[in-house]
Amino acid sequence: MSHPSTRISRLAEKQSASRAELNALLDATPLATIALVRDGHPVVFPTGFARIGDSLVIHGSTGSPWMRAVADGAAVAVSVTTLDGVVVARSAFESSFHYRSAVLFGTFDVVGAEQKTAYLEALTDTFIPGRVAELRPSSRRELAATMVLRLAIGDDNWSLKVSGGWPDDPEEDVAAGAWAGVVPLATSYGEPRRAPDCPAEVPTPRSVLAMTGELANHRR
Amino acid sequence: MSHPSTRISRLAEKQSASRAELNALLDATPLATIALVRDGHPVVFPTGFARIGDSLVIHGSTGSPWMRAVADGAAVAVSVTTLDGVVVARSAFESSFHYRSAVLFGTFDVVGAEQKTAYLEALTDTFIPGRVAELRPSSRRELAATMVLRLAIGDDNWSLKVSGGWPDDPEEDVAAGAWAGVVPLATSYGEPRRAPDCPAEVPTPRSVLAMTGELANHRR
Repeated sequence: MSHPSTRISRLAEKQSASRAELNALLDATPLATIALVRDGHPVVFPTGFARIGDSLVIHGSTGSPWMRAVADGAAVAVSVTTLDGVVVARSAFESSFHYRSAVLFGTFDVVGAEQKTAYLEALTDTFIPGRVAELRPSSRRELAATMVLRLAIGDDNWSLKVSGGWPDDPEEDVAAGAWAGVVPLATSYGEPRRAPDCPAEVPTPRSVLAMTGELANHRR
Repeated sequence: MSHPSTRISRLAEKQSASRAELNALLDATPLATIALVRDGHPVVFPTGFARIGDSLVIHGSTGSPWMRAVADGAAVAVSVTTLDGVVVARSAFESSFHYRSAVLFGTFDVVGAEQKTAYLEALTDTFIPGRVAELRPSSRRELAATMVLRLAIGDDNWSLKVSGGWPDDPEEDVAAGAWAGVVPLATSYGEPRRAPDCPAEVPTPRSVLAMTGELANHRR
């Protein structure tokens, strides 16, 4: 498969070849940003995703023009990034972020009818762990209206850049005595809010209770 | 300027034309994902940014190949997205996210030497409010190594999609009595961690103290 280089040009020492680190990042955030080329122009679409085994899986309406282009084999670049902290150095120049950033290249395949339900259930249980068991099954109409697409995570179609160190100030700045360090950034769930059309006597389900507190799969 | 359509195809009722809402989103997160076309392929780069007036501003090394391509006038699509909550509906089909998603099109301009310092200071004070006043000025060498690029936020080169409502379950699912609601998602700073080469007697600066607790510009 032909795709752009996965060799990182800048700060190449931050490139990671670790599949485990890649998987950890993909499992830590549900948001991917998908770029493709339309009429020669770059276009970009944020969407929820889940890693299911060796695939990055997205879903959406069969009526979505960009998903149809992707289903038809448009080449994509997929960005998945978390900001994990602010690096407060002794100069503006050395200040930066802790981040983890993956880019994946390739084309998506359409998940066929026989696997669609299993993939959709895996997506739902990634976004809301345990929710599938609490819900009615998807209807035939819902399944027909939904497209599921899968990008294979191969050996060489991704890059990963991880920035996680302390500020790297030159000696004279350290000697000058300013404070330096890192302020962590974390995403967490707040208190669940009941929908106005949901009577107070309906108990909050286990899946939702399990989400509160620290975002479980964002823990490091 | 020729650029892709900013009319949203799917869930068009979620499109917002509010510049104030756009600015609020751009001010709520420091992460942008920038897509461009290289050799006919989409490529994508996450980077820190700040809104400075009517511009979306990024910076980086003069040695960065993708930034040089952008400085040379490559057409870009810029995505800025926050996930604000998980919509827990009574079916998988209706479950979704609360999100705010902006896409901006155009080309970046290079910020000239006479404005570079002011833009870099605004970037630093966006990422770490109040930090510039605590730091030595940037050196001539640092300024020369840094490129600052600005994308004009015009009247018609952006789209904004906001999803913020309650689950929209059909009547029969509401009647069946499952719980429904929203679990908010929020990003916050953790306790600052002092660098190993920063002696304990150096006081934590006001800028860092001000970051702790809820992420100030992420409050809604």
